[in-house]
Amino acid sequence: MREFTEILRQTKEKAPLVQCITNFVTVNDCANIILAAGGSPAMTQDPREVEEGIENACALVCNMGAIGYAGSMVLAGKRANRLGKPAVFDPVGVGGTTLRRDTGARLLEEVHFSVIRGNASEIRWLAGEGTRGSGVDVSLADAVTEENLPQAAQMVRRLAQKTGSVVAVSGEIDLVTDGNRTAAFRNGCPTMARITGSGCMLTALTGAFCGAAPDDCFAAACTAAAAMGVCGELAEKRRLETKAGNASFRIYLIDAVFNLTEEQFQEAVRYEIL
Amino acid sequence: MREFTEILRQTKEKAPLVQCITNFVTVNDCANIILAAGGSPAMTQDPREVEEGIENACALVCNMGAIGYAGSMVLAGKRANRLGKPAVFDPVGVGGTTLRRDTGARLLEEVHFSVIRGNASEIRWLAGEGTRGSGVDVSLADAVTEENLPQAAQMVRRLAQKTGSVVAVSGEIDLVTDGNRTAAFRNGCPTMARITGSGCMLTALTGAFCGAAPDDCFAAACTAAAAMGVCGELAEKRRLETKAGNASFRIYLIDAVFNLTEEQFQEAVRYEIL
Amino acid sequence: MREFTEILRQTKEKAPLVQCITNFVTVNDCANIILAAGGSPAMTQDPREVEEGIENACALVCNMGAIGYAGSMVLAGKRANRLGKPAVFDPVGVGGTTLRRDTGARLLEEVHFSVIRGNASEIRWLAGEGTRGSGVDVSLADAVTEENLPQAAQMVRRLAQKTGSVVAVSGEIDLVTDGNRTAAFRNGCPTMARITGSGCMLTALTGAFCGAAPDDCFAAACTAAAAMGVCGELAEKRRLETKAGNASFRIYLIDAVFNLTEEQFQEAVRYEIL
Repeated sequence: MREFTEILRQTKEKAPLVQCITNFVTVNDCANIILAAGGSPAMTQDPREVEEGIENACALVCNMGAIGYAGSMVLAGKRANRLGKPAVFDPVGVGGTTLRRDTGARLLEEVHFSVIRGNASEIRWLAGEGTRGSGVDVSLADAVTEENLPQAAQMVRRLAQKTGSVVAVSGEIDLVTDGNRTAAFRNGCPTMARITGSGCMLTALTGAFCGAAPDDCFAAACTAAAAMGVCGELAEKRRLETKAGNASFRIYLIDAVFNLTEEQFQEAVRYEIL
Repeated sequence: MREFTEILRQTKEKAPLVQCITNFVTVNDCANIILAAGGSPAMTQDPREVEEGIENACALVCNMGAIGYAGSMVLAGKRANRLGKPAVFDPVGVGGTTLRRDTGARLLEEVHFSVIRGNASEIRWLAGEGTRGSGVDVSLADAVTEENLPQAAQMVRRLAQKTGSVVAVSGEIDLVTDGNRTAAFRNGCPTMARITGSGCMLTALTGAFCGAAPDDCFAAACTAAAAMGVCGELAEKRRLETKAGNASFRIYLIDAVFNLTEEQFQEAVRYEIL
Repeated sequence: MREFTEILRQTKEKAPLVQCITNFVTVNDCANIILAAGGSPAMTQDPREVEEGIENACALVCNMGAIGYAGSMVLAGKRANRLGKPAVFDPVGVGGTTLRRDTGARLLEEVHFSVIRGNASEIRWLAGEGTRGSGVDVSLADAVTEENLPQAAQMVRRLAQKTGSVVAVSGEIDLVTDGNRTAAFRNGCPTMARITGSGCMLTALTGAFCGAAPDDCFAAACTAAAAMGVCGELAEKRRLETKAGNASFRIYLIDAVFNLTEEQFQEAVRYEIL
């Protein structure tokens, strides 16, 4: 856990520039959550400049919600690989349509990602399992639960070993693995599924932490999963206190990242090494 | 009124997937208001996947603010028509430029929309009346008022009969008609015109309710008009209490949809059948 | 100062339509801040309609964050020039990549801008000075400080004289000049750099004020710099009172513009003529 709080601190100190190619639905939230954590966001997606952009950045985030910019993701991803900078992949809706399946496969073939972060439906599809996901939201049948936890951990481990990436699956239980070490996180709240962008923001945060700690993307992805869950709980507490709804919750979630102290984090985080 | 509250409830129970092709200005708000009502938003607009996307969706929303994606709207709209799924059209700024006039005419020719929802300038233009609208905002001269209510009702009825669509015009007074039944709604507040996206969000909400009640899009459009007006009033109350401005109002509006109870709704709604 | 409060008032009375070609990250905030000030935003960017759009508008805003729409900026800008309507330019990230350098140079060559508003790195690059900016955020080494204020004022004056534009550089100290008169503003707060869009929103606000006072874009740009700084302080006060973070701050900032009174403005504004 000490390394998690160290990564939180390093992000504030280093202010890593995070280059994001991300979808238009949640791009503002992704930029603001990177800023909340202490990072500096750059949301360029034009194929004519993404390679040059990555030169100055500490990390790259490729969010497949920006499906029209897959070409930019390949260009920026290859450059990040060459420069040894971490690249984070969010396979938004990968099982949902032919275009997304093809694009997801192409990206994994052409770019090596340090971290792949998705919901259970997306990660299951990448792992070659059947999935019932019908869009960008996770299918209930795919979710990681206490019952299927051992099998789910096995599944993400296999995907991590196959891809050489840290794999993070988020939901009620979050799993993060590098194919060897695997951690489970049990923070968060149901309202996170009632806003758009919880997943995208977690991916952006993962990018910021990888930018601050590029030598340990497993710890960075764990820190992101833990911080997002803890901040979800803090935001939900404030939402209930103010009798607010999902739109306020989204604001409170980013606020919680902005104000998160190491004490809050250590007190609230619930995780185990599997 | 009972059917309105039933539609609110059905949306929460069924969680309809609503496929939106909508503009980049308000896309985040549209997704969050669909979630607030209990629906599930998908904001795909790529022509290579919108047809496949509609297979899993309960309803389609075409917002002409996404003017560059008119081709996607035609593809998705035709598919929705073939599958018998409701399609909702927001003719954003249709009278304003040649491009918008042509695109609006093309969309109405190629796709049958279950509901057309716009402001008074947009609806008047579609009805073939002169309009003084100069952009995306309604012209004062076009607004539906107590004085011109009978003529305005006649105008929307004619458009509904011509298109075979439910027609909804929003403003200080909202009118919804299927060409036969016509209802007038008198909820809402002026601050709704001081944020961007009130109209887009109402269209998105109409899509969610049509997805929950595809067999009665008139009732669904009425429910959306009523709920939006009631939530506008609740949001304005909270804005004044917290001495806040238009940006908070936008958050409070979505929050109000999230927290709306049947009691709040029934107590506040003001409508009549014309 | 009286002319500043007059411009605030004129914007509310005239409700100028402001045509913005602006980036997808902060477009919603830009529209809402224009509405907060009393203006009416139109965010069209399609090259097929931007020229027609400008016919009805009072001012044009070209934000180079929308790098893919530089062609639309040229079309709309030339039309605005022909119609004698003010055009405001935000050279987002202009020093950062070859594409941005080329696009910035092209825009300045083809369009005459009434106001150029950027951060210190961007403005220094346009002025032909070396800059250490590496992206959309200002480099510390470029910032305007009490120490380098005379040289910085000289630099912006030269750029204003060369371009015939009002030049506004924002940061801890804001400078606005028409090449002759130069004013320095010392409002604002550090949290403004912890949200995305402070700069874009200031540019949008400048567009709204230029639309209300097209005959005095220097006063309009001064009013925008002053109002943004004052509202930043009001927002920060409210953020601390509510123990909130950067996401709330962004909402509070727009709220402060919405609720800004002439008394608040006059009491808080800190500026001098150099």
